[in-house]
Amino acid sequence: MGTFQEATAVVPRGGAAGLHEFDATLDEQWAVGTKLHGGYLLAVLGRAAAQVTGAGHPHLTAVSGSFVQAPEPGPAVIAVEVLRAGRGSTQLRARLAQGNRSCAEALLTQGLLNHDDAWWSGLEPVQLPDEQECFRSPAEAPGAGFRVPLMDVVETRLDPGHLGFAVGKPAGKGEIAGWQRLANGDDWDPLSLLVALDPVPPVSYDLGIQGWAPTVQLSAYLRRLPAPGPVRVQMRANDVGGDRMDEVAYAWDSKDRLVAQATQLAAVRVPERR
Amino acid sequence: MGTFQEATAVVPRGGAAGLHEFDATLDEQWAVGTKLHGGYLLAVLGRAAAQVTGAGHPHLTAVSGSFVQAPEPGPAVIAVEVLRAGRGSTQLRARLAQGNRSCAEALLTQGLLNHDDAWWSGLEPVQLPDEQECFRSPAEAPGAGFRVPLMDVVETRLDPGHLGFAVGKPAGKGEIAGWQRLANGDDWDPLSLLVALDPVPPVSYDLGIQGWAPTVQLSAYLRRLPAPGPVRVQMRANDVGGDRMDEVAYAWDSKDRLVAQATQLAAVRVPERR
Repeated sequence: MGTFQEATAVVPRGGAAGLHEFDATLDEQWAVGTKLHGGYLLAVLGRAAAQVTGAGHPHLTAVSGSFVQAPEPGPAVIAVEVLRAGRGSTQLRARLAQGNRSCAEALLTQGLLNHDDAWWSGLEPVQLPDEQECFRSPAEAPGAGFRVPLMDVVETRLDPGHLGFAVGKPAGKGEIAGWQRLANGDDWDPLSLLVALDPVPPVSYDLGIQGWAPTVQLSAYLRRLPAPGPVRVQMRANDVGGDRMDEVAYAWDSKDRLVAQATQLAAVRVPERR
Repeated sequence: MGTFQEATAVVPRGGAAGLHEFDATLDEQWAVGTKLHGGYLLAVLGRAAAQVTGAGHPHLTAVSGSFVQAPEPGPAVIAVEVLRAGRGSTQLRARLAQGNRSCAEALLTQGLLNHDDAWWSGLEPVQLPDEQECFRSPAEAPGAGFRVPLMDVVETRLDPGHLGFAVGKPAGKGEIAGWQRLANGDDWDPLSLLVALDPVPPVSYDLGIQGWAPTVQLSAYLRRLPAPGPVRVQMRANDVGGDRMDEVAYAWDSKDRLVAQATQLAAVRVPERR
């Protein structure tokens, strides 16, 4: 089982002027069912962007992705274009393609993150039971109908208070929260946090909505470098309607600092109106 | 003074195969100081995207924009590329350029919105004093040092509870909220709501941070068609640090339905640590 670093590796190839191209090999391990995880795909794009910006702006600080068509595990080509190289940050756009098919597109901002505390925060870290009292999500959940290989590489322990869906009694609060670690013991970094920000299962499970909730667009902001140890991730929905659900996620490190946040719009099929 | 419709008009021009190009004339009225408003720029891109998708997917449902370099009022060229035309939605990307200079880039999703209530909501509309008891933001604020032409076309009435900054006593809650109407009496639509979602002043004023807070990236989701009448917009910051601030905005229509929401990462210069 490879590391996250290996699963997101990119190799430069020759490209047209101004366009930086890279080869990647998408790893089936970072998947839910047979679908590669959206945060993982954005991380591959971020890895390529970081090779373009280099040491001056080494960290992804913001990314907005549009998920166009699910790629297959295996070879993919990343194309990166610098939009503007500024003093404090570099803005880029990137595409992940297989053959002639665009699979994901992203707008990225690279900069320099540090470990500093917030100057001001209006957000309290989510309160969770101790890590060992939370429920480790299995790769093979009874009755799920498909494997979640991601759960073998991301140790996800959910707050039991949000687990009612597993016994047919969803809490109905539109919230999922839990602890996450990389299963091989590696520490989190800004790119792997993109995976943490879109946890499994989606918040829709807590609302009694079954099935997959594919992301249409997702935006993540990486705020500071995470301290070693697990992160706590809280994800909430605000509004479900018109076959769409928004989800907001926050990740705090072991020192209680907000390290990353995300918003996404996902497609859902809601049951008949309650 | 032109309408929003006129200020965001686009005219098709010939383009390379697969690329749809449009001419636009950016209107200095939709500006803060001399900087054109980011939501206005995204609306121009959305107008072009809607011409490409046509009647099947007439409404912008999601947009993520990266603000690369502030454009000047006057002529600009919009290039739109269809990424995927699906049954329920069309995904596109778009660029706003002046000469060889990219000013703004966006990933967009077009679909079909309606007036339906939410199937589920976890969000209460912001509570505000009556519209007439809120404070209309002037285009020429005493001591601001620059004009805000936008305030002549968007009637913005702020909750007096968030106005401490104007007398040197910011509330420090990281929140700004108020009523908004288009000043000429036009109703809101999904594109003009992009302007409403990034109100003036930024939330940083409520935290005692002076000056302009330029948007780095902004993502907006349009959730349903707004009812006639004003919208109430609430904007909050979650975390300020590392010269960055995130802002989350929600807009409710006169029937208390969430019609649009946005998240942005903005650049700020914070004073010495308190």
